[in-house]
Amino acid sequence: MEEQIAALAAELAALKDATAGMNRTAAETFYWLTIPLMVLIHAGFLSYEMGASRAKNALASGIKNILAFAFIIPTFYYVGWFIYWAFPTGFTMSAGPAGISGLDYAIAAASPVGSAMGPNVADSATGVFFGAFAMFAATTASIMSGSLIERIQIVGFTILAIVLGSFVWILGAAWGWHADGWLVTTLGYHDFGAAGVVHAIAGFFTLGVLINLGARVGKFNPDGTANAISGHSMPSALVGLMLIIAGFWGFLMGCVIFPGEAWSWGQGIFATIYGTPVTLSAMTFNILMGFAGGAIAAWVMTHDPFWMMSGALGGIISVAAGLDLYWPPMAFVIAAIGGIIMPLVAGFVEKMKIDDAVGAVALHGVVGLWGVVAVGIFAAGYPALASEGAPTITLYGQVIGALVMAALGFVPGYVVSFVLKKLGMLRVPKESEIIGLDKVKVPISAYPEFLMPGTSSTSPAE
Amino acid sequence: MEEQIAALAAELAALKDATAGMNRTAAETFYWLTIPLMVLIHAGFLSYEMGASRAKNALASGIKNILAFAFIIPTFYYVGWFIYWAFPTGFTMSAGPAGISGLDYAIAAASPVGSAMGPNVADSATGVFFGAFAMFAATTASIMSGSLIERIQIVGFTILAIVLGSFVWILGAAWGWHADGWLVTTLGYHDFGAAGVVHAIAGFFTLGVLINLGARVGKFNPDGTANAISGHSMPSALVGLMLIIAGFWGFLMGCVIFPGEAWSWGQGIFATIYGTPVTLSAMTFNILMGFAGGAIAAWVMTHDPFWMMSGALGGIISVAAGLDLYWPPMAFVIAAIGGIIMPLVAGFVEKMKIDDAVGAVALHGVVGLWGVVAVGIFAAGYPALASEGAPTITLYGQVIGALVMAALGFVPGYVVSFVLKKLGMLRVPKESEIIGLDKVKVPISAYPEFLMPGTSSTSPAE
Amino acid sequence: MEEQIAALAAELAALKDATAGMNRTAAETFYWLTIPLMVLIHAGFLSYEMGASRAKNALASGIKNILAFAFIIPTFYYVGWFIYWAFPTGFTMSAGPAGISGLDYAIAAASPVGSAMGPNVADSATGVFFGAFAMFAATTASIMSGSLIERIQIVGFTILAIVLGSFVWILGAAWGWHADGWLVTTLGYHDFGAAGVVHAIAGFFTLGVLINLGARVGKFNPDGTANAISGHSMPSALVGLMLIIAGFWGFLMGCVIFPGEAWSWGQGIFATIYGTPVTLSAMTFNILMGFAGGAIAAWVMTHDPFWMMSGALGGIISVAAGLDLYWPPMAFVIAAIGGIIMPLVAGFVEKMKIDDAVGAVALHGVVGLWGVVAVGIFAAGYPALASEGAPTITLYGQVIGALVMAALGFVPGYVVSFVLKKLGMLRVPKESEIIGLDKVKVPISAYPEFLMPGTSSTSPAE
Repeated sequence: MEEQIAALAAELAALKDATAGMNRTAAETFYWLTIPLMVLIHAGFLSYEMGASRAKNALASGIKNILAFAFIIPTFYYVGWFIYWAFPTGFTMSAGPAGISGLDYAIAAASPVGSAMGPNVADSATGVFFGAFAMFAATTASIMSGSLIERIQIVGFTILAIVLGSFVWILGAAWGWHADGWLVTTLGYHDFGAAGVVHAIAGFFTLGVLINLGARVGKFNPDGTANAISGHSMPSALVGLMLIIAGFWGFLMGCVIFPGEAWSWGQGIFATIYGTPVTLSAMTFNILMGFAGGAIAAWVMTHDPFWMMSGALGGIISVAAGLDLYWPPMAFVIAAIGGIIMPLVAGFVEKMKIDDAVGAVALHGVVGLWGVVAVGIFAAGYPALASEGAPTITLYGQVIGALVMAALGFVPGYVVSFVLKKLGMLRVPKESEIIGLDKVKVPISAYPEFLMPGTSSTSPAE
Repeated sequence: MEEQIAALAAELAALKDATAGMNRTAAETFYWLTIPLMVLIHAGFLSYEMGASRAKNALASGIKNILAFAFIIPTFYYVGWFIYWAFPTGFTMSAGPAGISGLDYAIAAASPVGSAMGPNVADSATGVFFGAFAMFAATTASIMSGSLIERIQIVGFTILAIVLGSFVWILGAAWGWHADGWLVTTLGYHDFGAAGVVHAIAGFFTLGVLINLGARVGKFNPDGTANAISGHSMPSALVGLMLIIAGFWGFLMGCVIFPGEAWSWGQGIFATIYGTPVTLSAMTFNILMGFAGGAIAAWVMTHDPFWMMSGALGGIISVAAGLDLYWPPMAFVIAAIGGIIMPLVAGFVEKMKIDDAVGAVALHGVVGLWGVVAVGIFAAGYPALASEGAPTITLYGQVIGALVMAALGFVPGYVVSFVLKKLGMLRVPKESEIIGLDKVKVPISAYPEFLMPGTSSTSPAE
Repeated sequence: MEEQIAALAAELAALKDATAGMNRTAAETFYWLTIPLMVLIHAGFLSYEMGASRAKNALASGIKNILAFAFIIPTFYYVGWFIYWAFPTGFTMSAGPAGISGLDYAIAAASPVGSAMGPNVADSATGVFFGAFAMFAATTASIMSGSLIERIQIVGFTILAIVLGSFVWILGAAWGWHADGWLVTTLGYHDFGAAGVVHAIAGFFTLGVLINLGARVGKFNPDGTANAISGHSMPSALVGLMLIIAGFWGFLMGCVIFPGEAWSWGQGIFATIYGTPVTLSAMTFNILMGFAGGAIAAWVMTHDPFWMMSGALGGIISVAAGLDLYWPPMAFVIAAIGGIIMPLVAGFVEKMKIDDAVGAVALHGVVGLWGVVAVGIFAAGYPALASEGAPTITLYGQVIGALVMAALGFVPGYVVSFVLKKLGMLRVPKESEIIGLDKVKVPISAYPEFLMPGTSSTSPAE
């Protein structure tokens, strides 16, 4: 009998090992899958921003997108990932209460010369986490990218993209999207789907840049009225926006913590990045309702398909921070409010003589803030962290958090673009802008065969 | 020794808990992933239907797609999901033999004010199931959408989309795509991949609408002959169709029941919605063969890339109902027959003076029926349900089921569009149609810079 | 107590069964998901190759892509899959040391009339494996396809696609991408992500075809200088390339062996196709770095967005063979070298009077070889197989392997295209080429409404 028990114990231990391996494999696969979905966001941004440009600037817009993505990878590898783990408690680099932050932790977890940041058969998680975060970083740069088209220099833009993607937003993520983040531990800041730390920061960074960059030639009339400068292919923009919606599911999937690992928050149920429970089911209800509410409201407001798709995105952003908590019909309403706010703010931005070519300040910046504040209005009282004695979500905490995110985006965006402007690296010469950036900067032509009377079309290839 | 046994038992119980959590997580993730794949179907439809429209109507076509998707979410939340669980046994709302249907069950499972339909840490499955079904619903509306382009009113279309997506097809699903569905329990109806309950219903609903809607101006000549009205961008249509093929894998993935849960059919192997076993491997063989057979047959028939991609879709629809059962070379043949039927039926529809702009009646309607009937021809004799004494698949049951699907689609499509016509809500005025819907209804222009002699092009932005 | 132990043992056995089922389900789902991601590769190729064609040939290019995909499915079902299992040890069809190759094994595993190649509730793995491999096969044909546009006959192309996709590359895979492959067992050839067996073979096959096919009319001047023949829609090409990047994650996901099954290499950690351990995390780091290094280098070299996106692809191809082994900053450098090589080789190919319309010989052929050789330079010394006494990776083995891949691609590409040329099946008549293939071969027009002065535009539909 003794032997039977020993045999059973051995068998049980082996099974425990096997299931631990299965869970590890499942977690690794889960985060891996977020990445191709988020690459779709970049295919979408490429289609969308080229379509939203005039034909004479289409390829220059595309180049920006490709470069932003490409430069963010190595800079995020060397800097961004380290910032995320070093700075949650502020600039002191001290460890936070959950013990997963501070200088020592960051060196162990995120040193680019350490064992975690490369092939390591004993660590199957760091790379896929890093990958998801790097894609978030690339997304912040793409959010900014569309607003600046048709007059920004390529190198100047690339510098701004790196600053935003590998330095700024990830500091915001350390503060408000990390269990040791000071906004979370002190104010109960709750931003499950990154409405503030990704969208609002990127949107307000963009606002700072736009002030220094100035409007496109011909955007504003001497009497102060604005002209619409339409993109050359709205179908391309619309399809691109729907690809972004598809990719958004990968983005939001990357916002959950898979259960059952040493680094997980508990077992058998997904958690937010704060350790509180969440189900993919709750997220599904609310993402779909967010899409619907935002798109329908934008339709009512504008009848414009470009704004309808932006409204669909804006609806999801409106509910992103509380996807884990909202009752679906409430999510519809919150998203519809976002869809109403968006075109109004876009009109106001234009009235302020700021030329935001695709409305990112309104869509990501202000609607992102709305998403953060909405949690304070509609979901106050929930615990903000998994730990005992954790602060609860409050309207006050969400408003302060929203202001921090807006400032954290705006200030570096303004300052860095101001410096670039002084260095002559921000804006292309006026003549280049009038001729079109593609003719000046790009060795090929977007559409060599199509006849476009307003642009000097090249003669078609034989 | 007593303690050793107790310790082992406790350890085993803990491991059982952990593995139960792992299975729950895997099931939830599985259905979640179907949704971004199905969003690709909508990106595809957007690209496809705008490309298949003339340039003057491209954005109006896109608006329809966005609105259909957006309006189906809340209406399916409030109505469609409830219908699925309440009506399997017919209109009496009684419970069926499997005990997962009827009024009481629907109130518990699908009440929009109940605990299942929102964030609920004790129910991680309902939301992702709902999401997959809502995407199926949105797909039915997109199937219809392309056929009606260039002359339907936006509000009228939206009403039709809601009726089809949140009322009609889901009733068909309750009857024939549910273990308690009366078509299944009494006739052994087998429609694994929804060839009948999605494609045929949507196709015949569309036929009903087309009869009342009428042909586009210029489609038919006074002598009764038809003109081809070509879309303005065939490349956009083709890429869109290939995106739909990618998304189709999400759709069909959403047709299987994940094993190992309380709501699953058994353990260790996927099941159809009827509880019979199926492997993703069988599906893979047959989907690929369906694609190939349909595309090759359509190429032989037409040499037209638009029909080839439609044939690829049609090939998959042809084999969808029996993906779980066919031998792959047989699937190729069944799909090829679908690819031959499709253009012939499309020609016949045109001869009947029905102007189906993208051939959805042929592709989804008639090929969908073929898919249902093919199971009766090539896979009769298999059990139609997991239960003991279950009816088997017969040609008779499949033919009756096909007729029910055709009628269930056609009648409401005809009746609702008839009422809309009487109310003046179905068709745009003739002048709007000739000028182009975008000029009349949409505040922006699809291609402001390209010169198109047949359409009065706007002057390009500076 | 006896009974308690028996009860525990029974419970444990049941749990073991359940977890075995869970693992089987996870493995099946894992490979299934690679397939829709790889369909995105085909949506991308469609967008890319049509965009890279002149408008007069756009649809003919698209037809090629659709047909290649469609014809490879059944031919790979009947032939390709069998080759993979029969020929790893060379042409003798003897069994290799791992016992998973040779005639008998191939008949059991891959006979198209056997029980593995269809619905089989006892085998949930074969179909999804087959599906992933069939998608690799279709990708090889798409790699070739773009280079041959605008002058190849459709039937001739389809024959070449079948030869490459269902015969040639899969023989290379048997030799170098299989644990019994003679290149692996004798030379320690390591090609984790198929840089050689997919990309180099396809690229050199293409080179063989291009020599017989000849340049497009107008490509080379009498004095030997070359003209650029630009595609009609670079935005469409760029978006297509980014979709290919998204799909590449599915491709590389299909290169790993899921753990925990009877056919797996060990438990709890993914393996390469050679059985050596790999993590998705390592792959993620290196794929992202490959993208970045290749895109940035190509930008520095060319400033051309088409080459930048090709460079992004080329960067991933450069690191593909060693994704499991590289330190990420090293991967960046290897990819950047690939991004530098690519345009130089493309220039050389043009200088040789070979008209490679999209640069596939440089991008896939030569950069693919670079990827293979790079493993020998940067990762020599690692074991090449999981077995004891396995050979290690050496520069010698990689160079020989690279030469084998180049020859294995080039020779059949040259020979089959030579035969097709003699039969008059390779190239369209000169007049058709000048008029444009769409006008001659395709019953519809790509852009019936847009005005293109160089191409005789049809009058727009009313």
